Amino acid sequence: MNFKDQLTNYIELVNSHLLTYFNCKEGHNKTLIESMEYSITAGGKRLRPILALASYELFGTDIEQIMPYACALEMIHSYSLIHDDLPAMDNDDYRRGKLTNHKVYGEGNAILAGDGLLNYSFELMLDFALKQKKIYSHVRSIKEIANSAGVNGMIGGQIVDLESEDKSISEDVLNYIHLNKTAALITAPLKVGSIIGGGSEEDIKTMEKVGLNLGLAFQIRDDILDIIGDEDKLGKTVGKDIENHKSTYPALFGLENSIKKVEELTKNVNSLLKPYGDKASFLLDLNNYLLQREF
Amino acid sequence: MNFKDQLTNYIELVNSHLLTYFNCKEGHNKTLIESMEYSITAGGKRLRPILALASYELFGTDIEQIMPYACALEMIHSYSLIHDDLPAMDNDDYRRGKLTNHKVYGEGNAILAGDGLLNYSFELMLDFALKQKKIYSHVRSIKEIANSAGVNGMIGGQIVDLESEDKSISEDVLNYIHLNKTAALITAPLKVGSIIGGGSEEDIKTMEKVGLNLGLAFQIRDDILDIIGDEDKLGKTVGKDIENHKSTYPALFGLENSIKKVEELTKNVNSLLKPYGDKASFLLDLNNYLLQREF
Repeated sequence: MNFKDQLTNYIELVNSHLLTYFNCKEGHNKTLIESMEYSITAGGKRLRPILALASYELFGTDIEQIMPYACALEMIHSYSLIHDDLPAMDNDDYRRGKLTNHKVYGEGNAILAGDGLLNYSFELMLDFALKQKKIYSHVRSIKEIANSAGVNGMIGGQIVDLESEDKSISEDVLNYIHLNKTAALITAPLKVGSIIGGGSEEDIKTMEKVGLNLGLAFQIRDDILDIIGDEDKLGKTVGKDIENHKSTYPALFGLENSIKKVEELTKNVNSLLKPYGDKASFLLDLNNYLLQREF
Repeated sequence: MNFKDQLTNYIELVNSHLLTYFNCKEGHNKTLIESMEYSITAGGKRLRPILALASYELFGTDIEQIMPYACALEMIHSYSLIHDDLPAMDNDDYRRGKLTNHKVYGEGNAILAGDGLLNYSFELMLDFALKQKKIYSHVRSIKEIANSAGVNGMIGGQIVDLESEDKSISEDVLNYIHLNKTAALITAPLKVGSIIGGGSEEDIKTMEKVGLNLGLAFQIRDDILDIIGDEDKLGKTVGKDIENHKSTYPALFGLENSIKKVEELTKNVNSLLKPYGDKASFLLDLNNYLLQREF
């Protein structure tokens, strides 16, 4: 299968599995489930689940084994966007060209929809883990995901990002933000894919390095697109970082150096994946595709 | 040990264990950890962790085995209060006589502090579970807690509560709110205590019934105190339910019937605990103490 077909295939697989988690909308909490589903189905690249699937397929053969973790990662990503878009945070009315959760359901509901998605992600992972024979590697994977999303991961990055608005920050702080706010939840799927797939401890370490490089490249590309991107392709307002006086990689080191940095990180990923040969061709293509992405 | 001494003993045990989870405030995410600790140490009855300890001690002998779950339950309770107090939800400036999280740290931080506490509770439980020989019952307990806090538990109750403001609701909806918003996270510690303690499946079922009765009684007493309570003892504003046109048990059935209902539920708990004899004396005393509580 060529890269684009495989990408489409993975996205469809993720989307159809995600829907199964929201098919019960009969109870009193109907609006909550609907609002969670609204944000989960409001588009998005599905990068985190795709990375989990692709990493898993380097080592394992039964893709259903990784699906709950792939879906949980997308739910965690989605909850973080719902909370990030709130008036008290980034105050965004649109996300991926659609109204943000709180613009449709109200702020109170949006806070609870975010809480609900985070909590639900653990519920479904734990439910799956309890049914497995080799429970240890499953619990290890859930912990990996929890850590990447937590106070020393994504949430830690978000708080420092929030505090850094309207301030000039050091390279050290900027790295902390990028590594935690973004790279942590991109590293987790790659690691978890290798853990559930049965990779060796060395494989797991390699996947972690792939994640850190890819995650950093992804965030810097994001910051670049906020300057040179096309609003229609991005589905969101451009120039928000400058407007909010956010310290980004381009703001600190300039556009040209940022583009170079992304290229360098992309090369690192390619080198790390080389030993896996043809098996890693999808991840390699994805890596190069993300380097050029315009959305 | 008499009831009051045992209660103090449990509270001190919980408080000292809770603190150990917040002793790292050196990193860039310092303010986040501080704000999480602020809410966790802002007082409170510690009812959920105490129930976990007391239930555990009916069956098990090494209290350290239940401590992470007791602490995690308090963190989940604390996160739910932080989010509940936000302007978009109940809009409370004070909680237990102290400024609410968002009044001290700002709304954005408070949203993240809540997210952080929920996520952190899973991190510490998973970390503990991975180190145990009998991992299954630990993972089962985490799932129990996750479910009780989730969209078909606490968060489900909160959304229906939020939607029901300024509306007259049926007894059915009121029960849904009480059972999910409050009783779920009171039932979980009792169940988890018996699971980790090594109780039989029948014991676990009994503890679940104890939780549902106790949880419902606790919530109705809460609603009663919002009418007849003393602001100084409660550490919060009285009359908020009537002001917000909240449908409560007293609003639907009157004050006298509500007091009778609490007495009836308290009696149910006493009957359920009777077969455990002297071992259950703390839980029995606690149950009767909660019936009379003024805070």
